[in-house]
Amino acid sequence: MNDRYKEILGLLINALQNGPDGNEIPVGISNRHIHLSQADLETLFGAGYELTKMKDLSQPGQYACKETVTIAGPKGAIEKVRILGPVRKETQIEVIVGDKYKLGVAGELRMSGDLAGTPGVTLIGPKGSVQTKQGLIVAQRHIHMTLADADRLGVKNGDIVDIKVEGPRGGVMTNVAIRANDSSALECHIDTEEANAMGLTSKSTITIVK
Amino acid sequence: MNDRYKEILGLLINALQNGPDGNEIPVGISNRHIHLSQADLETLFGAGYELTKMKDLSQPGQYACKETVTIAGPKGAIEKVRILGPVRKETQIEVIVGDKYKLGVAGELRMSGDLAGTPGVTLIGPKGSVQTKQGLIVAQRHIHMTLADADRLGVKNGDIVDIKVEGPRGGVMTNVAIRANDSSALECHIDTEEANAMGLTSKSTITIVK
Repeated sequence: MNDRYKEILGLLINALQNGPDGNEIPVGISNRHIHLSQADLETLFGAGYELTKMKDLSQPGQYACKETVTIAGPKGAIEKVRILGPVRKETQIEVIVGDKYKLGVAGELRMSGDLAGTPGVTLIGPKGSVQTKQGLIVAQRHIHMTLADADRLGVKNGDIVDIKVEGPRGGVMTNVAIRANDSSALECHIDTEEANAMGLTSKSTITIVK
Repeated sequence: MNDRYKEILGLLINALQNGPDGNEIPVGISNRHIHLSQADLETLFGAGYELTKMKDLSQPGQYACKETVTIAGPKGAIEKVRILGPVRKETQIEVIVGDKYKLGVAGELRMSGDLAGTPGVTLIGPKGSVQTKQGLIVAQRHIHMTLADADRLGVKNGDIVDIKVEGPRGGVMTNVAIRANDSSALECHIDTEEANAMGLTSKSTITIVK
């Protein structure tokens, strides 16, 4: 299809779906959580253990599990940290900034999967504990979307954008990564501290600033 | 002094003090805390009790006290909440948004002292407890400054401004109240969630967006 037709069709579809000004993106709020490797899962919960799905998450194939673990660092521990499934190639511990102070670890702002050089922590489960070599991050805020969403919103996978938040604690948040692929649901992922600071709830929407 | 001379002198003083582009404002980060009335202090700690100063705060005459209390709501309690002195006319409980969920209270975004219609909570001290009729707020972000600072920065007491935050979690925060009087130290007050969300520490500075 001719690019100009495609652009106009995108605008039309957006207008029909979301109203004439509809570029609102739903907000998904993450509290601290852990993705485990199969090896670490078995150390913490026992040989051959499988995760128990409790609730599907908005991203296709992702789910919250019944299982929780304790995270411990040199200064303190945080109990009942939720495990998200399915298992991943490498264990990843996503905390909020306040947790870094509680645990006494340095943790950096990173995108999911970018773990080289991040701090390790101790994970404690019912059947054992693991000292991870790395894997603790504070998640960089990002927006999941399909390639069609990206097209409609005028962005592409890997872009870094600003987002606008309305309301009495509103403003603009910079350095928001676009993650576009065809297995994503449209959702802007921020953590609980970012949500609370900006007055956002799981019913809020944000827009990309052009 | 002629207004134009005053304006130029202000710019000169600013340039000498802060460098030619110096409009940086230091950040002060508040965790949850309580201001008590003398009556509530005595109920919680005993008749005739006086607060014990632990550390001066940056605002003249304000200090953190050795004493802490427990806050309790319908859903939960938070222990060891710091009391700030001196005592005030009315008890005021300043929490972060995450605390509202823990306590199970509705708490609104308010400026200090604007307590009409805010929720009450239970405060528990070593000698007794108080059910406050109102007084729980989440503090609206604000900037303390002298009238001379206000003049230099081109704002006045009561203005609502935007502030700019640099860095990987940077952005703009709207709805920041200017509180200018001659007994203030220049400082932008935000809470721990706002600081963590925007990557700010007690060594950070922000600027007012024009």
